[in-house]
Amino acid sequence: MKTQVAIIGGGPSGLLLSQLLDKAGISSIVLERKTKEYVLGRIRAGVLEQGFVGLMRKAGVSGRMDAEGYTHDGTVISNGDEIIQINFSELTGTPVVVYGQTEVTRDLYEAREKAGGQIEFEVEDVVINDAKSDSPYLTYTVHGEERRIDCDFVAGCDGFHGVSRQTIPEDVRTEYEKVYPFGWLGILSETPPVHDELIYCNSPRGFALCSMRNANLSRYYVQVPLTDKVEEWSDERFWDEFKSRIPAEMAEKLVTGPSIEKSIAPLRSFVTEPMRWGNLFLCGDAAHIVPPTGAKGLNTAASDIHYLYEGLKAHYLDGDSEGLDTYSEKALLRIWKAERFSWWMTNLLHQFPDQPAFDVKMQQAELNFLRDNTEAQKVLAQNYVGLPY
Amino acid sequence: MKTQVAIIGGGPSGLLLSQLLDKAGISSIVLERKTKEYVLGRIRAGVLEQGFVGLMRKAGVSGRMDAEGYTHDGTVISNGDEIIQINFSELTGTPVVVYGQTEVTRDLYEAREKAGGQIEFEVEDVVINDAKSDSPYLTYTVHGEERRIDCDFVAGCDGFHGVSRQTIPEDVRTEYEKVYPFGWLGILSETPPVHDELIYCNSPRGFALCSMRNANLSRYYVQVPLTDKVEEWSDERFWDEFKSRIPAEMAEKLVTGPSIEKSIAPLRSFVTEPMRWGNLFLCGDAAHIVPPTGAKGLNTAASDIHYLYEGLKAHYLDGDSEGLDTYSEKALLRIWKAERFSWWMTNLLHQFPDQPAFDVKMQQAELNFLRDNTEAQKVLAQNYVGLPY
Repeated sequence: MKTQVAIIGGGPSGLLLSQLLDKAGISSIVLERKTKEYVLGRIRAGVLEQGFVGLMRKAGVSGRMDAEGYTHDGTVISNGDEIIQINFSELTGTPVVVYGQTEVTRDLYEAREKAGGQIEFEVEDVVINDAKSDSPYLTYTVHGEERRIDCDFVAGCDGFHGVSRQTIPEDVRTEYEKVYPFGWLGILSETPPVHDELIYCNSPRGFALCSMRNANLSRYYVQVPLTDKVEEWSDERFWDEFKSRIPAEMAEKLVTGPSIEKSIAPLRSFVTEPMRWGNLFLCGDAAHIVPPTGAKGLNTAASDIHYLYEGLKAHYLDGDSEGLDTYSEKALLRIWKAERFSWWMTNLLHQFPDQPAFDVKMQQAELNFLRDNTEAQKVLAQNYVGLPY
Repeated sequence: MKTQVAIIGGGPSGLLLSQLLDKAGISSIVLERKTKEYVLGRIRAGVLEQGFVGLMRKAGVSGRMDAEGYTHDGTVISNGDEIIQINFSELTGTPVVVYGQTEVTRDLYEAREKAGGQIEFEVEDVVINDAKSDSPYLTYTVHGEERRIDCDFVAGCDGFHGVSRQTIPEDVRTEYEKVYPFGWLGILSETPPVHDELIYCNSPRGFALCSMRNANLSRYYVQVPLTDKVEEWSDERFWDEFKSRIPAEMAEKLVTGPSIEKSIAPLRSFVTEPMRWGNLFLCGDAAHIVPPTGAKGLNTAASDIHYLYEGLKAHYLDGDSEGLDTYSEKALLRIWKAERFSWWMTNLLHQFPDQPAFDVKMQQAELNFLRDNTEAQKVLAQNYVGLPY
């Protein structure tokens, strides 16, 4: 087979890129290791920056998001029982949209199928060949059958464990990583969310987050030691702990119920540089990971897709390769700022093992400064709704 | 002897308080451990927040400062050779004033002497008695002679090593401390300053600061390991290292010359809580220390003097003790924010031993964000010119 852009990874990044390229008349084929059902079964966050929303609209797949997504004009940071209201719309003129990653992915699959887009599922043993040449090609197998795609460019949207990043030789890539000494225990519960905005809670017992999927589906988290196992957390234990960490006025009105999903995720910051090697371009989790504090995971992937899409469009439609040539630099400048924001918010809101008393006081001072200073709130809000592309 | 407010410490804090109280018709006596000449010989920084400038004016001692002080409309942060201009006046409407602490102290001594203010020098063995009662008194000796002052209140302006903080029993005070793994090697040189504003330099070789006293007196610093000795730093070695850390365009026009003073100071963050115990009130270094990054040392002392002076004035003139009752809480709220700012700026600009590569990237991301984001510049500027009292 032959295509202009071979896209490895059928998650939201790869699909969005494929859909955007299609709109610009550029051909692509998407390879996905799993089945469509498996991809759609993954539960992920869903706070979308305006930039992401704009890309969905540009890709012509925003119908259901615009109708069913929740516009959040702000968020709450709590410090013990104290509430700090951060009003994104007032501070930046821009809200965020809460719309699950699963829904985003579903809409993109539907659009790709409607447009006759080519997606290969259950591909195995993908190899990226001749990435440094003008005619790279992919080889892979599907149910034991060997296949090959010739292309101009390869977009590596295959996540942290994918083949794309590992294809770049170790001596030309530099990896930066920080592993945090705690994880997030999250539950899904068919209960009305305790508040209509997200609440990021700093409490002496550790971090908690009040989030939601829809009007009757709550998503709640508590910070736990990395050594904890899900089995050790009964629903009852979870609710008790959760209530002790959220502001009293929220705990009072919290509706509890059985969990329908429960899992522990570690927190990590990770970036690889560069994000381009020859005609292979890394996007999203293939190049970087953020801790979930600040909801930047999906949004940083979208930022990469924006730069890559603009670069490919200029290359094919205008014969201008400057966007592709500067892809890594431009994408990384914005990625590092999002990494910084996620790291800062993680440091601000979590309790660290053996944290010196002075450092706890720095968290408190920062929270008090945030409460009292409009410009500090603006800085948080601008980062949260997304820095300009 | 009898007075309303006994002030321990004849540095700028104690003198300023004494002068302000005098203007309000409240009597005080100042006790100083050293001679006036010794106090005036201490070399300290001299970047004054507008709040400090306002207090000097209120105290009627601003004549020379207003005439000879340098108004700085901004400062420079450098990241390698890149220059980030922070314009305080544009960002906050407020500049800072560069006027040496030695000059401040000299002006205050002159004013106290002119007003017939009582200052006891070379006092030894100061003991604060009955601080929890309504009639505290101090005992001390001067050249072997025992003396006593009865008073209503004691202001502890006697610095980190003074008797005031140690008078508060250990079981009612909590101390918070952070020691940084480096010091500042500073020199004074009779050369024209390399730039008309301060330059805070982040360089791969470590932090440097371009500062000044006047048009022909430069004050320059480089970050050094705590194990370094002044004797190991010849002038030549200092200038070579300093040039390698400041932006190339500044290094080119740097005028070097012999140092007339050279010393290494450690960097420390420290706060004790509470700042009031009975009728003893701690002010300035007696209660808190900041690293010099951000020039908050003298300014945090002034902030305490403001709250204490207002509290004492309301108590004596209006019979309202609320200001004294809330002194510790109000002073600490602002102090912790200044501690946070100094800690943040120290973390942003220094190289730390064994600093993980990810953390260096966080510094770079923060500097790039600061370069690109006006609100982040405003947050820095507001902190630098001083948060409202």
